[in-house]
Amino acid sequence: MTNVALIVGAGSGLSASLARLLAKEGFTIALAARQIDKLKALSDEIGAVNFTADASQLNEVEQLFTDIEQKLGVPTLVVYNPSWRVRGSFVELDPADVAKTLEITAYGGFLVAQAAAKRQLAVGGGAIFFTGASASVKGYPQSAPFAMGKFALRGLAQSIARELAPQNIHVAHFVIDGGIRSATRIEPEDQPDSLLDPDAIAQTYLSIFRQPRNAWTWEVELRPWVEKF
Amino acid sequence: MTNVALIVGAGSGLSASLARLLAKEGFTIALAARQIDKLKALSDEIGAVNFTADASQLNEVEQLFTDIEQKLGVPTLVVYNPSWRVRGSFVELDPADVAKTLEITAYGGFLVAQAAAKRQLAVGGGAIFFTGASASVKGYPQSAPFAMGKFALRGLAQSIARELAPQNIHVAHFVIDGGIRSATRIEPEDQPDSLLDPDAIAQTYLSIFRQPRNAWTWEVELRPWVEKF
Amino acid sequence: MTNVALIVGAGSGLSASLARLLAKEGFTIALAARQIDKLKALSDEIGAVNFTADASQLNEVEQLFTDIEQKLGVPTLVVYNPSWRVRGSFVELDPADVAKTLEITAYGGFLVAQAAAKRQLAVGGGAIFFTGASASVKGYPQSAPFAMGKFALRGLAQSIARELAPQNIHVAHFVIDGGIRSATRIEPEDQPDSLLDPDAIAQTYLSIFRQPRNAWTWEVELRPWVEKF
Amino acid sequence: MTNVALIVGAGSGLSASLARLLAKEGFTIALAARQIDKLKALSDEIGAVNFTADASQLNEVEQLFTDIEQKLGVPTLVVYNPSWRVRGSFVELDPADVAKTLEITAYGGFLVAQAAAKRQLAVGGGAIFFTGASASVKGYPQSAPFAMGKFALRGLAQSIARELAPQNIHVAHFVIDGGIRSATRIEPEDQPDSLLDPDAIAQTYLSIFRQPRNAWTWEVELRPWVEKF
Repeated sequence: MTNVALIVGAGSGLSASLARLLAKEGFTIALAARQIDKLKALSDEIGAVNFTADASQLNEVEQLFTDIEQKLGVPTLVVYNPSWRVRGSFVELDPADVAKTLEITAYGGFLVAQAAAKRQLAVGGGAIFFTGASASVKGYPQSAPFAMGKFALRGLAQSIARELAPQNIHVAHFVIDGGIRSATRIEPEDQPDSLLDPDAIAQTYLSIFRQPRNAWTWEVELRPWVEKF
Repeated sequence: MTNVALIVGAGSGLSASLARLLAKEGFTIALAARQIDKLKALSDEIGAVNFTADASQLNEVEQLFTDIEQKLGVPTLVVYNPSWRVRGSFVELDPADVAKTLEITAYGGFLVAQAAAKRQLAVGGGAIFFTGASASVKGYPQSAPFAMGKFALRGLAQSIARELAPQNIHVAHFVIDGGIRSATRIEPEDQPDSLLDPDAIAQTYLSIFRQPRNAWTWEVELRPWVEKF
Repeated sequence: MTNVALIVGAGSGLSASLARLLAKEGFTIALAARQIDKLKALSDEIGAVNFTADASQLNEVEQLFTDIEQKLGVPTLVVYNPSWRVRGSFVELDPADVAKTLEITAYGGFLVAQAAAKRQLAVGGGAIFFTGASASVKGYPQSAPFAMGKFALRGLAQSIARELAPQNIHVAHFVIDGGIRSATRIEPEDQPDSLLDPDAIAQTYLSIFRQPRNAWTWEVELRPWVEKF
Repeated sequence: MTNVALIVGAGSGLSASLARLLAKEGFTIALAARQIDKLKALSDEIGAVNFTADASQLNEVEQLFTDIEQKLGVPTLVVYNPSWRVRGSFVELDPADVAKTLEITAYGGFLVAQAAAKRQLAVGGGAIFFTGASASVKGYPQSAPFAMGKFALRGLAQSIARELAPQNIHVAHFVIDGGIRSATRIEPEDQPDSLLDPDAIAQTYLSIFRQPRNAWTWEVELRPWVEKF
């Protein structure tokens, strides 16, 4: 029986690296996003199954997990990797954007984690991983909504790490501190390795997943060698 | 000209102590809550003006600040003191309760802070205080929604402290770590002072408000001498 | 009976402001420093008693507390305010400077706190306050020895806050984040209030000292409104 | 050319697991301790070279690094893993024990890190890892000296992570939160995996060492699934 990994918030960056690495390591991969047309190339490449779902909608998250369970089995690794960011002068923020940030960044994390935990408890355990950011531990100016969402997600991760770890669910929170290299964002030649390599981040996710339960990590941060912190 | 203080989430505990102390110190007091009938005795006692408002609704918050400004002037001290708490086994939580907790604890804090900041910037400065809890800095088991909301509120407070302090707005976050004494909750005789006295908490809020801007506190925690932490 | 306050590490800045404020509030003041000739003007002004002591030497600390107890009584407020800082490129640091920084910043804090706690327990309680810095909570580059000493002092303060608070000793740690205004360091005219006013800091020490034990603060930070953090 | 790993504070627990794992992965191993007779079986088993050194003595640390460099080459991975702990009621602590704890836990870490950094900079980079404990981030009662030493070591690690990372030295701090299984300490049968497995901890050290510099971790914590935190 193979492990099923579900990546929610799948896109072209960290999620794709993670999907590729996990596929190579023998996982069956499920990818979920609001729009899945952009996932086709990746899923074809690695043999993943795509699912359309808005993680901030209860019924869509329920449907997602029901479908995955039916098609692939219970995902024993679920990664919540929301890609959303609102910035701007505090007094000029549109309240609707703030509400949406909380929904996607934090509430969606709750819905996905709860659906995952219910099913993982039924099969004896699993892992739920959250992708955070420097904003998860430091509230930057001009960045209130992102700080609110990311702090909330970290609060969720910490609370359920304490609650679910003794029930054999490994909850971990990754503080990604720095820009991630991508097709459209490459570091200058004179600043080598100054952007996070998504493949390297994925490698750390895998290392944490492989920890035996007598030595679990709850939180780990990752940044390029030259990043100020 | 007197200072106007607005306390949002006014009830019978810390808010009432704060209102009494600030009134005694010469502030004009505005009290806002979803239901204001319970505030009548207090406002009669200290000469406060009551306002009905659900802090999680944009239009109600806007109306609240418009009304206060018209009747009393711009509140130069605004305290966000939401009273809301959901607890329970993570997998049994009702998602609607989690959404509501985020709305009241975090999103309402954003709406109130933004409305306050806009007006305080127009008059040259002010203070915005948030009431947190031990759950603001530690995610306890069986307590995911509260951790999410309180972490988010702290992220908001930290982000806008960094952004607004240099514009002469003093943002502070109070970590209330312990139970608060009330009419219905009194410490056992053999455990004197084991509950937080709301009057004592209020005194610290006032001390922080009075700090000159060359020595501002962003965060302070308060707990009884015998509280484990 | 008046309160006796002992300030260890007394100099011309924060210690002097604290001594003046406490004297004004009715405390009997004891000042201790390695060299006390520089304290004469201050002690004459406020009627303080000066004591020579190197806080990093056990016998001198014991002598100091014996002398104070005899002359003035048990100091119910003891402030450890070491003034010492080593900076520089890590690989070029002189190990002797690092050892000395640990001795003065951390070990001296232990000796003073232990001598204070023994005597305060005998009279039913008291307060022990430590002056920290931004380096207490963040290890800056080019600043390893200071980070080591200040982190250690904070670890001491946190450990004994947990241990001694239930024995009626109020332990508090102040994170002073920013430059302090002094005779030789004044802010530019176009950056008003950009340096911490030592009198304002002292006021917060006093507010924390006055907290009743049902609402004690362990840690508080102070910075100018325009300070980056 | 093989990597040379130096483990300072080598004993029978985590250090032995780390030595075995690194030897298996092709590292040349140097073990240093105050008393090396106890290391003989391990070094025979894995082909390590033993060095006698008291890490809190400057001349012994200098000699240690000179000897290693001569015999094995510059150690590109240096692990500081001090084994020392003093506990007890604060007012009853022997000041000599506190001084010794600071020396071994913190000052020794400085001496080893500085000697390592000087040599690693000369060869273009390396890694310096510190073993911390729950006491590194939380000052427990009855545990002041340990908190002082471990907080100081963490301050050192954080300061030099910021300073040396951009010079290609990977500094990491491991928060070991829980008891470690050993020959004399085995978990009860009905509490499986309730002690940290030193082999599992070693695996995480290796994973962190292998991170490419575009995705470095500074701090990671490890605890058993059932550990309260």
